[in-house]
Amino acid sequence: MITQLETFDLKTKAYYDIINITKQVQQTINNSGINSGIVNVHVAGSTGAISTVEYEPGLVKLDIKHLLEKIIPYNEDYAHHKTWHDYNGAGHLRSFLIKTSQTFPFKNQKLILGTWQQIIFIECDEKPRSRKIYCMIVGD
Amino acid sequence: MITQLETFDLKTKAYYDIINITKQVQQTINNSGINSGIVNVHVAGSTGAISTVEYEPGLVKLDIKHLLEKIIPYNEDYAHHKTWHDYNGAGHLRSFLIKTSQTFPFKNQKLILGTWQQIIFIECDEKPRSRKIYCMIVGD
Amino acid sequence: MITQLETFDLKTKAYYDIINITKQVQQTINNSGINSGIVNVHVAGSTGAISTVEYEPGLVKLDIKHLLEKIIPYNEDYAHHKTWHDYNGAGHLRSFLIKTSQTFPFKNQKLILGTWQQIIFIECDEKPRSRKIYCMIVGD
Repeated sequence: MITQLETFDLKTKAYYDIINITKQVQQTINNSGINSGIVNVHVAGSTGAISTVEYEPGLVKLDIKHLLEKIIPYNEDYAHHKTWHDYNGAGHLRSFLIKTSQTFPFKNQKLILGTWQQIIFIECDEKPRSRKIYCMIVGD
Repeated sequence: MITQLETFDLKTKAYYDIINITKQVQQTINNSGINSGIVNVHVAGSTGAISTVEYEPGLVKLDIKHLLEKIIPYNEDYAHHKTWHDYNGAGHLRSFLIKTSQTFPFKNQKLILGTWQQIIFIECDEKPRSRKIYCMIVGD
Repeated sequence: MITQLETFDLKTKAYYDIINITKQVQQTINNSGINSGIVNVHVAGSTGAISTVEYEPGLVKLDIKHLLEKIIPYNEDYAHHKTWHDYNGAGHLRSFLIKTSQTFPFKNQKLILGTWQQIIFIECDEKPRSRKIYCMIVGD
């Protein structure tokens, strides 16, 4: 049994930014030398999120943006804004709902994903951020 | 430490179909011979999803359907439709939001679930699909 | 390779209650003696959920409450109510959407979380509940 923690960094844009991190996650598996198991992809923070999507511009630039604006609009007077006098209440709620991690299987050092399925990081904060993504690989 | 990858297949109905896969997931644990650990249940695709629910007709046939139609209606003019000239934009968004995997603990070869809690696959695509579900079991 | 199952108990309030369980999850890692790996935090039930948030009153007492009431209102006539003649349809839907588990990495026996990120249990049921939280730790 082996565990290996790998990380990589991202530079994100403010408010809404979706970055395809599939290659970076695959690279952490290569780096680990672990053959088969799972990788837990996690952002240590409360205004980012991890999920998967077909990474094409219609979904990434427009449809997901509209969905998130519909259920968790950015320009609303959240109670969170009174706590810190910042304006990223929507960012916290989006991160809470989508969640900050997802776990994926791999075999023969290759992520098991659908042909059109990519792993994404979603920036939800009101400022551009430097993000560290943690990939904890557990397998043999 | 042992990892074991098991799979099973599903035939799904178009647009909205929820299948109770608890027995199949439990069977993969039995097949693995692993006593204690976690199972990562994952659909390799971008229009399916995994979660849990009390599998009774009110929730499965009506309430979840209405919830998903309310927040991500099928008949809307998604930007994704222009990319491929298909009409499953809602399916992609539902899969993005609910997510394509969930990880569960087991002990003494038995899944740890609530009495009324079942593991489900949610078909979100506009066509009936043949789905392969991947269960990566990690434990000892 | 080691797996270790730890549990802890919670007393929750009805309808909507968010409890910061970060310390208890960290304690299960300490108890396990495992140095590095992942912890799968899971509620065995269909009306609870696990996620993360910055645990401050604005988000916890108001913003998340309003978000959940907006997308999955409690006082609605859910089909689930006809099945059992209870009134926790919203609780089941919230648990289905937010999900009953999340998996986190740890290293040197310490959870990897953001400075403002706490692990939370969300009670969604219409009655106060005694909840058991399962933490399956897998690592070395």
